[in-house]
Amino acid sequence: MSNYKIALLDGDGIGPEIMTEAVKVLELVAERNNITFDLIHAPFGASAYFECGHPFPEDTKKVCDEAHAILKGPIGLSHEESQKIPVDMQPERGALLPLRRRYNTYANFRPVFLPQGLAHFSPLKPEIIGDGIDIMIIRELVGGLYFGDKETGTTPEGVRYVRETLEYDENQIRRIAIVAFDTAMKRKKVLHNIHKSNVLKSSVLWNEIMAEVGKDYPEVRVENILVDAAATYLCLNPGRFDVMVMENMFGDILSDQGGGILGSLGLMPSACLGDDKAYYEPSHGSAPDIAGKNIANPYSMIGSVAMMLEMSFGMDQESKNVWHAMQSVFADGYSTADLSKPGSGVNMIDTQAFGDRVVEAL
Amino acid sequence: MSNYKIALLDGDGIGPEIMTEAVKVLELVAERNNITFDLIHAPFGASAYFECGHPFPEDTKKVCDEAHAILKGPIGLSHEESQKIPVDMQPERGALLPLRRRYNTYANFRPVFLPQGLAHFSPLKPEIIGDGIDIMIIRELVGGLYFGDKETGTTPEGVRYVRETLEYDENQIRRIAIVAFDTAMKRKKVLHNIHKSNVLKSSVLWNEIMAEVGKDYPEVRVENILVDAAATYLCLNPGRFDVMVMENMFGDILSDQGGGILGSLGLMPSACLGDDKAYYEPSHGSAPDIAGKNIANPYSMIGSVAMMLEMSFGMDQESKNVWHAMQSVFADGYSTADLSKPGSGVNMIDTQAFGDRVVEAL
Ligand SMILES: CC(C)[C@H](C(=O)O)[C@@H](O)C(=O)O
Ligand SMILES: CC(C)[C@H](C(=O)O)[C@@H](O)C(=O)O
Repeated sequence: MSNYKIALLDGDGIGPEIMTEAVKVLELVAERNNITFDLIHAPFGASAYFECGHPFPEDTKKVCDEAHAILKGPIGLSHEESQKIPVDMQPERGALLPLRRRYNTYANFRPVFLPQGLAHFSPLKPEIIGDGIDIMIIRELVGGLYFGDKETGTTPEGVRYVRETLEYDENQIRRIAIVAFDTAMKRKKVLHNIHKSNVLKSSVLWNEIMAEVGKDYPEVRVENILVDAAATYLCLNPGRFDVMVMENMFGDILSDQGGGILGSLGLMPSACLGDDKAYYEPSHGSAPDIAGKNIANPYSMIGSVAMMLEMSFGMDQESKNVWHAMQSVFADGYSTADLSKPGSGVNMIDTQAFGDRVVEAL
Repeated sequence: MSNYKIALLDGDGIGPEIMTEAVKVLELVAERNNITFDLIHAPFGASAYFECGHPFPEDTKKVCDEAHAILKGPIGLSHEESQKIPVDMQPERGALLPLRRRYNTYANFRPVFLPQGLAHFSPLKPEIIGDGIDIMIIRELVGGLYFGDKETGTTPEGVRYVRETLEYDENQIRRIAIVAFDTAMKRKKVLHNIHKSNVLKSSVLWNEIMAEVGKDYPEVRVENILVDAAATYLCLNPGRFDVMVMENMFGDILSDQGGGILGSLGLMPSACLGDDKAYYEPSHGSAPDIAGKNIANPYSMIGSVAMMLEMSFGMDQESKNVWHAMQSVFADGYSTADLSKPGSGVNMIDTQAFGDRVVEAL
């Protein structure tokens, strides 16, 4: 009987309440498969800073080090609250980026997938959506501007300036290229490579390595497309994309645009894989304004569990079951407040009820 | 009687044909106002490289130096064609960026405006569009990654790498902040400041200077919003934005997303202002696939003329007239191929006919 340790980092805002629903799913899956998930909660984010003086406490690191996989809730505070925390202790710089760096989780999978029955909530017209939206954005997660040198200073003339570095080397690009091509092979064998090579030298190297790696995947059709054009076409014709690969900052922006075309960032689970460790997280924020009200949508957190089951534990069938269970809640006409506006024909249920229905459907 | 010199850089692809329509408008405006526009064509872009060996020839520089304003067509080639040109002679690196740098055109105005009667072509649902889309994106145009140091090399271990610098100083930020606040004062007194201060130190300085400048504009309500969230909300609720200000690369991506939500990059004219010189350009590409077919949409080129009339020559009323004339073509039910799909009730006309109708309506 397998026994897996899973670190649960509840995070801030709506984190704890959507984590609760994800845990229900994990427990049921364990029971049904006669395995044990050791679920160990550990503080992380702004709440951890206020509790323990650090957003990524040593004890949490230890829990994560020993875990087979990590499930992480959203982090962050309202603009006002975050002013109370020193810059380097803020949850992004002090916890999230260090987590990514610690486990070198370079491959970030962000599905932009519109569940059946939710087209109603997309801001896009039905004729634009066509058969649905089903894109896998693969974002490089531990390079680029996010992790380059940063220098703030004042010139001798008293002018404040700032300089930061966008850096990539061929190894960093090659490993994410391989992930992207492998993913394309499992899907439609079309890969959109997003770049800005008419301006950025980093994109020139990026494209070179993509082309090199591509030689090992003769079946995959590669389309090189400028990041600005990609932003246009994600709105105009999302159906033309299947797998998209891009560097860190481009991935940050385009994946959130992806949440936009779905109609809610609440529909954005994600997986962040390193060679030895993976963590899973909703890619939206912690929505402090609705925290504690039992109205948040746990879809992205449960979806992150589904990705964990597949990618960390090889439980492909259970992963599919979880996706289907969530779909069936929507298909039955139920959803949380964000996706149940009046007149949509969808009945509003709360966070807990959503989790319960998923568990029931499973 | 005023006499203005205008440099006309036709550019590549559809550039010459949409320039022809813009010239018709300029000539009519001159005649009606009893002024003279000296219109001087000069080669620029890939076509200039093939003709004269340089994408921004010395003679063209001279014409631009002496002009009161510059009207520039789109530049660029198909991916295949551009392989034939050495990297530093490509029209972006060899002509467009040097043009921006030469005249220090730091303030790029990109209206994301949906003309009445064209909501049909937006990929967004009517209830998302609401009363229309009318956003002014103000993009910093001569700083950031575009103009930072770039270094490509190989480590002693033989690993290729690339490093480029994102740089801003407080003066660069202050001058664009002033432009943005001034623009907000002329519009709805709401300014969305786009940043990524949870990761980028450049955004931290950016936000500091924005706040400093904002003290001189107590009437303007400033909303600080992360670039990724902005990408979400441009799709979900474009009506919440009026004036948006951002650094160079963010502006590149979000303004093209803006073209996406309008339904066509063909609807994107722009103005690029420096302290002493301004140039005007469509912000879309040169569409080599449809070049020479008399089907391109000259709206963005004529719109750029409208912006020139206002911003370089203070001819506010004539500028409005040009906008209205274009609107009336749409209102009469006519447009070019990109905005006249079957069943839309819009009659397809060619590039020339569009220009003629604008001139007639004027
Ligand atoms: C919180 C922030 C640092 C993070 C990022 O920019 O990567 C978030 O926006 C995301 O996309 O996961
Ligand atoms: C052609 C390219 C260099 C340019 C840019 O990135 O600025 C274009 O995309 C634009 O937006 O004007």
